[in-house]
Amino acid sequence: MGVKVGIIMGSQSDWPTMKEAALILDELGVRYEQKIVSAHRTPDRLWSYGRTAVERGLQVIIAGAGGAAHLPGMMASKTRVPVIGVPIQTRALSGVDSLYSIVQMPKGYPVATMAIGAAGAANAGLMAAGILAVNDADLAARLDAWREALSASIPEEPKDE
Amino acid sequence: MGVKVGIIMGSQSDWPTMKEAALILDELGVRYEQKIVSAHRTPDRLWSYGRTAVERGLQVIIAGAGGAAHLPGMMASKTRVPVIGVPIQTRALSGVDSLYSIVQMPKGYPVATMAIGAAGAANAGLMAAGILAVNDADLAARLDAWREALSASIPEEPKDE
Amino acid sequence: MGVKVGIIMGSQSDWPTMKEAALILDELGVRYEQKIVSAHRTPDRLWSYGRTAVERGLQVIIAGAGGAAHLPGMMASKTRVPVIGVPIQTRALSGVDSLYSIVQMPKGYPVATMAIGAAGAANAGLMAAGILAVNDADLAARLDAWREALSASIPEEPKDE
Amino acid sequence: MGVKVGIIMGSQSDWPTMKEAALILDELGVRYEQKIVSAHRTPDRLWSYGRTAVERGLQVIIAGAGGAAHLPGMMASKTRVPVIGVPIQTRALSGVDSLYSIVQMPKGYPVATMAIGAAGAANAGLMAAGILAVNDADLAARLDAWREALSASIPEEPKDE
Amino acid sequence: MGVKVGIIMGSQSDWPTMKEAALILDELGVRYEQKIVSAHRTPDRLWSYGRTAVERGLQVIIAGAGGAAHLPGMMASKTRVPVIGVPIQTRALSGVDSLYSIVQMPKGYPVATMAIGAAGAANAGLMAAGILAVNDADLAARLDAWREALSASIPEEPKDE
Amino acid sequence: MGVKVGIIMGSQSDWPTMKEAALILDELGVRYEQKIVSAHRTPDRLWSYGRTAVERGLQVIIAGAGGAAHLPGMMASKTRVPVIGVPIQTRALSGVDSLYSIVQMPKGYPVATMAIGAAGAANAGLMAAGILAVNDADLAARLDAWREALSASIPEEPKDE
Amino acid sequence: MGVKVGIIMGSQSDWPTMKEAALILDELGVRYEQKIVSAHRTPDRLWSYGRTAVERGLQVIIAGAGGAAHLPGMMASKTRVPVIGVPIQTRALSGVDSLYSIVQMPKGYPVATMAIGAAGAANAGLMAAGILAVNDADLAARLDAWREALSASIPEEPKDE
Amino acid sequence: MGVKVGIIMGSQSDWPTMKEAALILDELGVRYEQKIVSAHRTPDRLWSYGRTAVERGLQVIIAGAGGAAHLPGMMASKTRVPVIGVPIQTRALSGVDSLYSIVQMPKGYPVATMAIGAAGAANAGLMAAGILAVNDADLAARLDAWREALSASIPEEPKDE
Repeated sequence: MGVKVGIIMGSQSDWPTMKEAALILDELGVRYEQKIVSAHRTPDRLWSYGRTAVERGLQVIIAGAGGAAHLPGMMASKTRVPVIGVPIQTRALSGVDSLYSIVQMPKGYPVATMAIGAAGAANAGLMAAGILAVNDADLAARLDAWREALSASIPEEPKDE
Repeated sequence: MGVKVGIIMGSQSDWPTMKEAALILDELGVRYEQKIVSAHRTPDRLWSYGRTAVERGLQVIIAGAGGAAHLPGMMASKTRVPVIGVPIQTRALSGVDSLYSIVQMPKGYPVATMAIGAAGAANAGLMAAGILAVNDADLAARLDAWREALSASIPEEPKDE
Repeated sequence: MGVKVGIIMGSQSDWPTMKEAALILDELGVRYEQKIVSAHRTPDRLWSYGRTAVERGLQVIIAGAGGAAHLPGMMASKTRVPVIGVPIQTRALSGVDSLYSIVQMPKGYPVATMAIGAAGAANAGLMAAGILAVNDADLAARLDAWREALSASIPEEPKDE
Repeated sequence: MGVKVGIIMGSQSDWPTMKEAALILDELGVRYEQKIVSAHRTPDRLWSYGRTAVERGLQVIIAGAGGAAHLPGMMASKTRVPVIGVPIQTRALSGVDSLYSIVQMPKGYPVATMAIGAAGAANAGLMAAGILAVNDADLAARLDAWREALSASIPEEPKDE
Repeated sequence: MGVKVGIIMGSQSDWPTMKEAALILDELGVRYEQKIVSAHRTPDRLWSYGRTAVERGLQVIIAGAGGAAHLPGMMASKTRVPVIGVPIQTRALSGVDSLYSIVQMPKGYPVATMAIGAAGAANAGLMAAGILAVNDADLAARLDAWREALSASIPEEPKDE
Repeated sequence: MGVKVGIIMGSQSDWPTMKEAALILDELGVRYEQKIVSAHRTPDRLWSYGRTAVERGLQVIIAGAGGAAHLPGMMASKTRVPVIGVPIQTRALSGVDSLYSIVQMPKGYPVATMAIGAAGAANAGLMAAGILAVNDADLAARLDAWREALSASIPEEPKDE
Repeated sequence: MGVKVGIIMGSQSDWPTMKEAALILDELGVRYEQKIVSAHRTPDRLWSYGRTAVERGLQVIIAGAGGAAHLPGMMASKTRVPVIGVPIQTRALSGVDSLYSIVQMPKGYPVATMAIGAAGAANAGLMAAGILAVNDADLAARLDAWREALSASIPEEPKDE
Repeated sequence: MGVKVGIIMGSQSDWPTMKEAALILDELGVRYEQKIVSAHRTPDRLWSYGRTAVERGLQVIIAGAGGAAHLPGMMASKTRVPVIGVPIQTRALSGVDSLYSIVQMPKGYPVATMAIGAAGAANAGLMAAGILAVNDADLAARLDAWREALSASIPEEPKDE
């Protein structure tokens, strides 16, 4: 069965953050591809990725970007495949710029925005799995197990380090 | 066929905003229910809504809340059904409080956060439809048509009013 | 005599901050317990902690959390025992997210919010002691002494280091 | 029995907000006094109010202030009676100035900070009641009833207006 | 001689702001066209506008957008013609979202960002004229005269109204 | 001749910043004293410092504080001697809390607020000197010379390091 | 005796705010002049005002400006006469832009920054008076009386309206 | 042929950032000069630079500044030559102060504002080249090639490091 999740990002420097999404999908047994698609430097790649997303069988797109962060929103403009946006933390504005650019989309083109940085990227993986689990009972069971394991891992009391 | 989308909100005063989500789902022919579920005032209702979401056949939950805005995140804690969060605009902080409370979720519990206010609520409806359309070709076609109609409605030039 | 103050926090990583509250209570001779209670990862633990707080004799709850930081507010929803909230400093947003999520509670469910980070945690211990001192003359005297010692420790002039 | 709660505020213009605290205390049958005590315009009044708070039998002080908002913190410096702070919404900075000035207290002098504006003032009344209820079973019962009534007042579904 | 300045905007609702740019160009005798080009609703129109800008003889593009505000940056990606960006004031975030989305462009794709709102739109017209004036002595003279007239219009003393 | 400038600060930890004010006054030959006066920990010291400022011959007071930063404003309440406020940079909020608490004073009690951190402290020294120079021609000449030396120290071109 | 205080502002639209400074100076019997001096539109007027300030006998300059708000800082660059800055409230950014532009001056050129808006303008008048009062015992007495009258005007209790 | 671009900055410490603009101009074969012109420390140098800019043949001015950051706006006031502003990142406010001071210019005096920090400086070089390329076909070709090389440099997939 083909790849259902596309993880795309604006540049190589986003990968340490976005890899958290990939790791979660690995843990949950969801196949994905990872691509660099820059809204500004490779707009035609973005166009083509968006235009062929449905026919290629992609069911969710995870897009990470920082600063002006146009990638998630432009992808949402080019395909009806649900787009999950991850705001990358930035140097001067700590990712508030990324967050505003990704979340404040106009009516018509939603981007499912996650938290700034690595936790947001991991959650993008979980959200993607949750969307696929709507019609995949096996994945739903694995996701439930993942969630239960996380809950079970929390100790009763904090420990001095 | 049963209701697949639950629209929930923290209080009656959120309804004028959240109705935008309902209107979109009406336009796209998606069945939904709308409920008031307050994280703080009716926590047991929240618990029960979350615990029964899967068995009741809900496939997406749209949750709107303002201020401390704990509803979307707590719902994401109680069910694996994808939760879309809508930050309601607030009086003193314009919804920045709602946005931060909804989007900054820890690893494990994603909330698909939309823009602050009415545009965000409408987009929550579209995101819900996009998720359902992954496995519903008819809905996918209706969503494509909705998107094309929106694009087609844009005039070439601005007009003086 | 039983434990009167519960110090709870969302995760192990909050303990270095929250320990400041414990240290103050130690100095003032107030008994407490410390627990990890995650609003999202262990919601049922939160429920049960809140539901039994009164019967267990807790008189104040100190709750620290970061980011979406739902723990203090959800605890305030589940029990009438006064809840003191400590916003943990966060990586991207420096704890402004934690602060807004904790302080902007809706009518009905106050959280006594402290400063972001370690000073806020120490002050949570002092606020808890101040609440208990309302009906404990011995503790009131110890708190007065603590405050006087702090004042007396301030030198007249700054020193070069 | 004497007045146990003091509601103080920096100026007459804060009263429409702070009256929300008084209304809650009326509903809960808690006696209070309301005073204008300006940190800057009547510093000696502040001094004297703080110095005599314990001997006058005050058990909680609710202090509202806007802008530089020094009243709650200075009162916390002058008495060990727990101080609850209410940030008044301001014209230019919407009360973010009031919030930061009230909540960011240094170690030693906690102010139990509430939400900006009217909801925060109402919650200050509830927090005061919660503190007094620690040693007043009748008040605890009235507070429980107030909370249950609030929960019970929430309808199941939102209504069009 | 052909049109040298393109004024584009994301939607009809931006026109009352963007018209300020047009008015300035009228005053300075610079020919322009005004178009609605939505980055999200009409991405292909954006593509085509950008791809043909040089051959059509455009020498400056003024782009106004609000919220996620991707239009100016995407246009800068598609053409080397200088792009001037105008952040439209928004309801919840007052245009801070628009400003960050427009100004925080990555290396390679500058957008000459103006102030939020009407003053920024007027200044976009002046910046466009300033760029064209580099090689148009007549326009330079008209721009100098416009600037001198503005300076000359300032009275010595303020007047009561 | 007596000391004309008082440099006060909330704690020893403010001294590395506030020393910049002292260094400027040293350079300009202005006598000063430096004291720790904590608004919260030593309120009576603050009271007494303010009440005796005029009779002791102080002509300017420089007050540095961080976080809730009540010292400058409370001093302005206690004496008509001009108070210059220096917002100390803070850990979580970078001194925005200090800035808002110092600058947003209500009508009646101005604090002459400087930039956050060391540059602000140095400028507090210069502002103090500027105020004293109004009636001290020798100091005015020294201040003019200091300013000219600063201007003269600026090289024509930047150098690689 | 000549005018000692110059009130300057960037445009006619600042006058309703800046008049608050004039009213205070009227109440305190301090002579002033009011001028429009725009940093950008009349830079030569700014230059000349600054260069002649000392010789004309000005002892304090009050400068109000909004947005980029360069007037106070540029005036501080041109004269050693103490400059008090008033940040005018702005439409999009509520005067945070004005505040940052005025207060964040580099070492060498202090601007005594007041609160945003009308309260800040009134306080600029009081600060100017406080500076002049350093060497004017009559004015000092009038300023003391003004302050005492303000304190005396505060009622004990708030009134319903 | 003479220098067409002036790179100016407020101080030596801005050079590591502003050098990014110089490097881009080197890559594109555009001649420039670099100068330190401080708005506050060398206002007369600023005046003279602005007044002679046209006659010296400057066609674009790139101005970097931090904090109050008056240089770009004051230069825009003194010459019609297009001014590109680069907000330097600052210690306490991360360059938000620089950004607001540069971008929020009043009607009449646009500054083409770039992103905060090094990316913004590089983009200032590209914007300058884009402006000159309007009338320089060779430079236009080099700029096109630069942009194509940037696009071509983006790999298809991210790599682990």
